[in-house]
Amino acid sequence: MKEKVVLAYSGGLDTTAIIPWLKETYNYDVICCCVDCGQEEELDGLDERAKYSGATKLYIEDIVDEFCDDYIVPCVQAGAVYEHKYLLGTSMARPGIAKKLVEIARKEGAVAICHGATGKGNDQIRFELGIKALAPDIKVIAPWRQDNWNMDSREAEIEYCKKHGIDLPFGTDSSYSRDRNLWHISHEGLELEDPSLEPNYDHLLVLSVSPEKAPDEPEYVTMTFEKGVPKSVNGKEMKVSDIIRELNRLGGKHGIGIIDIVENRVVGMKSRGVYETPGGTILMEAHDQLEELCLDRATMEMKKEIGNKLAQVVYEGKWFTPLREALQAFVESTQEYVTGEVKFKLYKGNIIKAGTTSPYSLYSDSLASFTTGDQYDHHDADGFITLFGLPLKVRAMMLQNTKDLKK
Amino acid sequence: MKEKVVLAYSGGLDTTAIIPWLKETYNYDVICCCVDCGQEEELDGLDERAKYSGATKLYIEDIVDEFCDDYIVPCVQAGAVYEHKYLLGTSMARPGIAKKLVEIARKEGAVAICHGATGKGNDQIRFELGIKALAPDIKVIAPWRQDNWNMDSREAEIEYCKKHGIDLPFGTDSSYSRDRNLWHISHEGLELEDPSLEPNYDHLLVLSVSPEKAPDEPEYVTMTFEKGVPKSVNGKEMKVSDIIRELNRLGGKHGIGIIDIVENRVVGMKSRGVYETPGGTILMEAHDQLEELCLDRATMEMKKEIGNKLAQVVYEGKWFTPLREALQAFVESTQEYVTGEVKFKLYKGNIIKAGTTSPYSLYSDSLASFTTGDQYDHHDADGFITLFGLPLKVRAMMLQNTKDLKK
Amino acid sequence: MKEKVVLAYSGGLDTTAIIPWLKETYNYDVICCCVDCGQEEELDGLDERAKYSGATKLYIEDIVDEFCDDYIVPCVQAGAVYEHKYLLGTSMARPGIAKKLVEIARKEGAVAICHGATGKGNDQIRFELGIKALAPDIKVIAPWRQDNWNMDSREAEIEYCKKHGIDLPFGTDSSYSRDRNLWHISHEGLELEDPSLEPNYDHLLVLSVSPEKAPDEPEYVTMTFEKGVPKSVNGKEMKVSDIIRELNRLGGKHGIGIIDIVENRVVGMKSRGVYETPGGTILMEAHDQLEELCLDRATMEMKKEIGNKLAQVVYEGKWFTPLREALQAFVESTQEYVTGEVKFKLYKGNIIKAGTTSPYSLYSDSLASFTTGDQYDHHDADGFITLFGLPLKVRAMMLQNTKDLKK
Amino acid sequence: MKEKVVLAYSGGLDTTAIIPWLKETYNYDVICCCVDCGQEEELDGLDERAKYSGATKLYIEDIVDEFCDDYIVPCVQAGAVYEHKYLLGTSMARPGIAKKLVEIARKEGAVAICHGATGKGNDQIRFELGIKALAPDIKVIAPWRQDNWNMDSREAEIEYCKKHGIDLPFGTDSSYSRDRNLWHISHEGLELEDPSLEPNYDHLLVLSVSPEKAPDEPEYVTMTFEKGVPKSVNGKEMKVSDIIRELNRLGGKHGIGIIDIVENRVVGMKSRGVYETPGGTILMEAHDQLEELCLDRATMEMKKEIGNKLAQVVYEGKWFTPLREALQAFVESTQEYVTGEVKFKLYKGNIIKAGTTSPYSLYSDSLASFTTGDQYDHHDADGFITLFGLPLKVRAMMLQNTKDLKK
Repeated sequence: MKEKVVLAYSGGLDTTAIIPWLKETYNYDVICCCVDCGQEEELDGLDERAKYSGATKLYIEDIVDEFCDDYIVPCVQAGAVYEHKYLLGTSMARPGIAKKLVEIARKEGAVAICHGATGKGNDQIRFELGIKALAPDIKVIAPWRQDNWNMDSREAEIEYCKKHGIDLPFGTDSSYSRDRNLWHISHEGLELEDPSLEPNYDHLLVLSVSPEKAPDEPEYVTMTFEKGVPKSVNGKEMKVSDIIRELNRLGGKHGIGIIDIVENRVVGMKSRGVYETPGGTILMEAHDQLEELCLDRATMEMKKEIGNKLAQVVYEGKWFTPLREALQAFVESTQEYVTGEVKFKLYKGNIIKAGTTSPYSLYSDSLASFTTGDQYDHHDADGFITLFGLPLKVRAMMLQNTKDLKK
Repeated sequence: MKEKVVLAYSGGLDTTAIIPWLKETYNYDVICCCVDCGQEEELDGLDERAKYSGATKLYIEDIVDEFCDDYIVPCVQAGAVYEHKYLLGTSMARPGIAKKLVEIARKEGAVAICHGATGKGNDQIRFELGIKALAPDIKVIAPWRQDNWNMDSREAEIEYCKKHGIDLPFGTDSSYSRDRNLWHISHEGLELEDPSLEPNYDHLLVLSVSPEKAPDEPEYVTMTFEKGVPKSVNGKEMKVSDIIRELNRLGGKHGIGIIDIVENRVVGMKSRGVYETPGGTILMEAHDQLEELCLDRATMEMKKEIGNKLAQVVYEGKWFTPLREALQAFVESTQEYVTGEVKFKLYKGNIIKAGTTSPYSLYSDSLASFTTGDQYDHHDADGFITLFGLPLKVRAMMLQNTKDLKK
Repeated sequence: MKEKVVLAYSGGLDTTAIIPWLKETYNYDVICCCVDCGQEEELDGLDERAKYSGATKLYIEDIVDEFCDDYIVPCVQAGAVYEHKYLLGTSMARPGIAKKLVEIARKEGAVAICHGATGKGNDQIRFELGIKALAPDIKVIAPWRQDNWNMDSREAEIEYCKKHGIDLPFGTDSSYSRDRNLWHISHEGLELEDPSLEPNYDHLLVLSVSPEKAPDEPEYVTMTFEKGVPKSVNGKEMKVSDIIRELNRLGGKHGIGIIDIVENRVVGMKSRGVYETPGGTILMEAHDQLEELCLDRATMEMKKEIGNKLAQVVYEGKWFTPLREALQAFVESTQEYVTGEVKFKLYKGNIIKAGTTSPYSLYSDSLASFTTGDQYDHHDADGFITLFGLPLKVRAMMLQNTKDLKK
Repeated sequence: MKEKVVLAYSGGLDTTAIIPWLKETYNYDVICCCVDCGQEEELDGLDERAKYSGATKLYIEDIVDEFCDDYIVPCVQAGAVYEHKYLLGTSMARPGIAKKLVEIARKEGAVAICHGATGKGNDQIRFELGIKALAPDIKVIAPWRQDNWNMDSREAEIEYCKKHGIDLPFGTDSSYSRDRNLWHISHEGLELEDPSLEPNYDHLLVLSVSPEKAPDEPEYVTMTFEKGVPKSVNGKEMKVSDIIRELNRLGGKHGIGIIDIVENRVVGMKSRGVYETPGGTILMEAHDQLEELCLDRATMEMKKEIGNKLAQVVYEGKWFTPLREALQAFVESTQEYVTGEVKFKLYKGNIIKAGTTSPYSLYSDSLASFTTGDQYDHHDADGFITLFGLPLKVRAMMLQNTKDLKK
């Protein structure tokens, strides 16, 4: 009996060409596995295609809700944004996919897992670190990094497929390099490779319209959260995945969450991409809006650092690590009272706050108001400033006393 | 001869009422000092008003360029934003004012400095820590925190003035509590004291229009920086203060930089305010856009932490401290190669990137492109991932080996 | 019926004098509460003394085990050391005492809690923040900060007591100002107030001997931990408080854990103290020794930052805050596999490692050895270094290319 | 004419065997370069040995003072200690060596630089990142990572040398793997590869004696610093390298600075080593002792983080990076007033503080003393605590008010 390999399969040209290549190169039985994170791809006919291309079996695994609950929600709660701009759409999905691939590999008794990520990107790292952490004994195959993978263009891949009896209607023209899931879509390549050029948004956008093309009428939205977890949109309770779908619809319509960045990849170079994250952008800002009321200053400051750190860890593919778990434990602890309602207005790329309430609000109007309330005695500020400023005063006195020493 | 006090004077009701109060309470000669940070107030007739109100002398000191060069530029370079939202408009101005007050106090041989900030806010701290640090021997008087300051309304102040022969046309109606300078205007009070309410932007905005009222046509802007210092707008070289003026005009027109936040004051309570920072918002984003090209990942990550720390330090009024100096030294060191041109589009509240160039760009299209270039050998990724993921693999193997121990 | 106050009572002169003062000043019934954190004070006769001094009731509350389990263990696990030197002995005890005082106050229906800490130290803050957090409605009385507390010397206190019919044999000579509990003893005052002077250790030490006076023979000790909690010393399982007692004995004998520092108080000034923490120093180092084997680099680095932050939070009296809870949640998450045995040698102030083992050790000799093992392929380092160093190379190439621009 | 390679040459077996190997493999002229960082090796006869072994030329470059001034002093000022234990002895030397190798390579017009570090350690990274940063166009050769380097034992190297006519008296027995320079000596290998074993200190120690063998008499030492730079020992002004030599003598005699750690290498595995850093340990503690007096709390806290970060950066070989420069700029800014004298006692492994003075001391005994001084008003603490604890109180009141909501 042949050994088995599990292949992360999308149905596209790249991963289809890998099927015969794996059989030829390793003499493996190829088990394809298509993990659905909400990429909205055509899954009909995928089974036929995989088998026609030489696969022994195809698994189609829907992990959308797991993706939302176990990966997205913790990152939203943490405010995890890589380099303060990238909302980690691809980064959060990869470990979930790796976990599923390992699960299938164990079930099938496979000896290897294969993915189609290139040797320049971050995804190879995220897949492989996930697999290492969950199944250190399983071999990883990354064809694009191998010398015996001789296909360096779509044409070459098509020809290779044909030579192996696979004749499928793949196009040869390359567009942007994209990755899509429920949370976002990323775009790289073409004009984006030159940072001096403006993105061709008309050509590029998939989930959203540009602010210029968004409606002239603003739209109010309300959302509720319980312990940092989104619960409803516009009064309607939904599971998280449906909330994101609804926010994608609203955000996409109003041109929300389109960003254009030069980011630093794990493998050491800068790359330029455009991300559309319509619903995710709204969700993170709404959560942040609520935290303004519910978290105290010291917690919020530390949590921002923790969130930045988590973003780096997730970006680097280190999901299944003790550090990610510990960072998440910190964040979860802060969410106990992040419960309440936020209201905002969507208008041509803007999310404009329109009021926030929480039963656990730490805002006290009687304290904040400039009219002295009975909770606040202005004289306390005297003592506070004296001691808060004591180190500055001691230093200034020292400097006055030692002026001559400096000469 | 009487002892002298230097009073931070604006010409408004609050600081005007302080003049007779200081004379009555302390028997001081009152030297008024109006420090101009670009607040665009009416300064004509201020001298007459001060003297009519009993002041011995009035200084009008224009520190706008110093404010820009010594306070704003370092904060822009640092990306210093308090609680990731507030661009520190008031916080950066206070130490500059304190420094000028001390300078006048020294020149006049004054024994005290008086300011009109209330006992609930941050400004009292910023003024007083500035004074402590520069002149620890000078007494600070904060009338609003004193028991013998009996005026708790505008009416009471007007009456007190009249009783002391000062009859000036101050209105009794209170509006938002505002602070304005070249960089921004802040608004507190009225409906803003209830975070569940949407701000009344039509009533509130001073420097800008709301996105809804901004032009339907986007406008492209180019800016250049040299070593992190802004040098030109739309091809025209200007000093920093003029750049900010021009960006204020552009940003105000296009509804840029209006934020609505619940922030945490130094004195321990939350307050809610709306800030307009049209030019400042553009300037910080433009600088950030350029740094994406010119800074490496490790420097950028650390710099973000440093910038957050600087924001806290500045917000807390600790400008004249060794920590602020050291943070600034870090930041300056990173700006050596932050030189280049950024282009962006302003449209109804959005700043949309439209291309960035720098002679010191660290972006390499031959590295970033998915087509293998001669600078990048895909095989290197094998070794990289093996070692980068080694700790995960070692741990996973340990866990496999010790599975039984856990039971 | 009179209102009640709960007084944190030690039986010493200061808190004894407070009893009549509270009755005279507020007409309260005084409920004394002596909270035992292991201070090894004479508790016999305390009840008589309190009542003789006018107290209505005395509670003696032993919280030693709670102090160990709920306060010390989390700080040990975190490696929380203030300013990298002070092991937080007093800081960790104060919140536990505050909690107990609040509990008694609730039980008794008291309206106020009184403590005898001075106005210059940290302890007033720790007591009062603890009480604020647990019982914001209860009034706090700090006699030493009040104008109507007219006693500024031990003599004055003794005289005041006598005037109120309390004649007890208190001495008038002042020694070091000390705070002792199971974890440590602190010393301040006398020659220590001049940082240029060497401490008079012969006079000062209570729990330990100086290294010079420690035995000439080293002593080996073994300890075990389970999930970061100490479990045994020299093969004998004990509860944490007994482990600390045994380590105090061992550490004290061998001159371990005596530190002399100038620290920065919360109230803004520097103070100089000597701390003896014989058992605590051993415990923290032993835990750290084990973590070297059991934690990966990334987790350890972040945990050090978290531990430093926790130390600041605890030092500042902010135990009952969401930030402390979140920091602790982080730490707990990292302790899952901190299980194993450490061995070390105590010798005249030194803790010398003598071997560490753990079933969850991440150390792999086959990886670490310079002889190539089959787990490690030297070629991987090529790829790793190429990508790890890519940002440096890209920058160097950019600088070479732009050399002329700089001129 | 042949192309040239510069070889980092020590005169030992490893780097001697590389000479014929480079000639055979690449047909290069081999320029040897021995960079002296204070390793106290026998340099007499090195020229003859290099040439006898086939080298075209030998450079002996003494960089000891540069090593002290440009690498050690900044790290001492920063308090840079990797994983809070390792004083970076090897890490700080490598970039200085790399810089010198590049300098010689440029002078000689060499096309490559070769080093003898193995593929498992950190040094390969430090050498190569240094070279990449300074000369990205120069090729790096690391024989130990190459397939055509077939020598996997000392015997094999000796045999290879003999085959190429090099007959030198190298021993075949392997001892600890060591690296020595002015700052430290490191030991790895033999029994150290098993963390459960106690190091064989009698066999191992080179620069120092163990505490047990140190003198029974303590020895007092005084040191002075100016702006954070060490200036004198026991009243005698010396250049930094001589200060380190003298402290090495003193520290070695008294058993100071011997550490035994399991550290995390850059390449992802843990390794165990013993380091002797007698003088360095004293120098860092003395500097720290002075900073306790001269730095304020906020600066010191941030500086600790910066120092930890610098330690990581230096450990990882990233000396020639903008981040290291910026971190160093921060640190330098803090050293302005780190001037004064420290006194301490060395005794059997202990450095015991014995008094510190500074003209810029921020310690004020009148502030710190428990007797109220005129600089401190106890009442200020009331106001301070009220506002410092305000967030806790507001939260507690909110929780009381919302108790029912939680049910």
